[in-house]
Amino acid sequence: MPNPTAAMLVIGDEILSGRTRDANMHYLAQELTKVGIDLREVRVVSDDRDAIVGALNALRASYDSVVTSGGIGPTHDDITADCVAAAFGVPIDVREDARSLLQAHYDSRGMEFNDARKRMARIPDGATLIENPVSIAPGFAIENVYVMAGVPSVFQAMVATVVPTLSGGAPLLSQTLRIDRGEGEIAGPLAVIAQAFPDLSIGSYPFQLNGAYGSNVVIRGSDGARVDAAMAQLAEVFAL
Amino acid sequence: MPNPTAAMLVIGDEILSGRTRDANMHYLAQELTKVGIDLREVRVVSDDRDAIVGALNALRASYDSVVTSGGIGPTHDDITADCVAAAFGVPIDVREDARSLLQAHYDSRGMEFNDARKRMARIPDGATLIENPVSIAPGFAIENVYVMAGVPSVFQAMVATVVPTLSGGAPLLSQTLRIDRGEGEIAGPLAVIAQAFPDLSIGSYPFQLNGAYGSNVVIRGSDGARVDAAMAQLAEVFAL
Repeated sequence: MPNPTAAMLVIGDEILSGRTRDANMHYLAQELTKVGIDLREVRVVSDDRDAIVGALNALRASYDSVVTSGGIGPTHDDITADCVAAAFGVPIDVREDARSLLQAHYDSRGMEFNDARKRMARIPDGATLIENPVSIAPGFAIENVYVMAGVPSVFQAMVATVVPTLSGGAPLLSQTLRIDRGEGEIAGPLAVIAQAFPDLSIGSYPFQLNGAYGSNVVIRGSDGARVDAAMAQLAEVFAL
Repeated sequence: MPNPTAAMLVIGDEILSGRTRDANMHYLAQELTKVGIDLREVRVVSDDRDAIVGALNALRASYDSVVTSGGIGPTHDDITADCVAAAFGVPIDVREDARSLLQAHYDSRGMEFNDARKRMARIPDGATLIENPVSIAPGFAIENVYVMAGVPSVFQAMVATVVPTLSGGAPLLSQTLRIDRGEGEIAGPLAVIAQAFPDLSIGSYPFQLNGAYGSNVVIRGSDGARVDAAMAQLAEVFAL
């Protein structure tokens, strides 16, 4: 059975302008790979309603689950929750469960729970909250879409909550063989091995060390015996 | 006049599996911003023909230019050039100008110019080569699509060649004001300023320092006088 699929939607002008370097894509990719969910596509869009709604609808129709990051804070450019509601065609308003979480948080710190902060309690109808142990303002899940914060510490905490609830697949196993020859020398024999193991993903990643070319060949698959067999053939072909 | 737009297509299983952390998106975003080209969307797809062709055709129809990274090496999983040819519906084969560049390179090093390496001379009909001063194997440009290597040093060299040839816009100016209050406290007044300056992009980026909340407010725009005016209003509102 093929693994479940996922996509990610990164939302934020600051990524596309180069001000901020996204860290969430790499983190999510690693966490999904561990549990056998194939991250198939990532899109990065700006804080623009049409762009967010369009990308979200395309991704949620194509993959088993979609994780978003960014745009759920209190400021005017945080429009993700409203865009998700629009994409699903459901109403959105301040919801009591989210409001009371935030109210208690600000009360305990003697801070005002003002209108801007109340924006963070706007949750589309039918969504369930995703806990935010770092800064309280929740994410939410609606159908196959998981809406999370862009701040990496919060994003990571939300991923830790959500990923164990997703249906995983066979975890991806991988083995790497370092070959001290350039990609151009190993590519021919490597293609023959890749053809013999169509159920595996065989990738080659070049490096240079002290002026010499080398390649790390990574064999990935969910069947350990097959990965072993391909690795054995690889070692034999390159006489290691 | 609005700035020219661009999109990026990152190609590679290794990014989506979390093995490699992409560095090219952030680099390109910064370089385009400097010359007034708006990077509007990034997609990351796997080494899959349908995924690459589909994403490329969607992006090249929507934006003024598209930069791709990855998948132009000599190994079996390097299928970008063939996918670009398929997307444009043009033939592709080993081309003499690219072949002779590579032949001279391998001859000078006493290395065999074998079939795998000849794959790197496959160029779609009608494309022009993009120089690769690092490792010779060229990228190429076809219509509004710029096909570049995934290895960051090569990608950066190709960006340095291509970006000055693109029609730029008014470079984006930005000013940042650090405000030692949390986003939730400044969001209300900030929204009022954002409404008064619809021609500017005003973003807020929270931080925590020694347990206290703060926000960096970034005002971006191509008209320096307008950015100054918004910044003055911001400073006045927050009585700094």
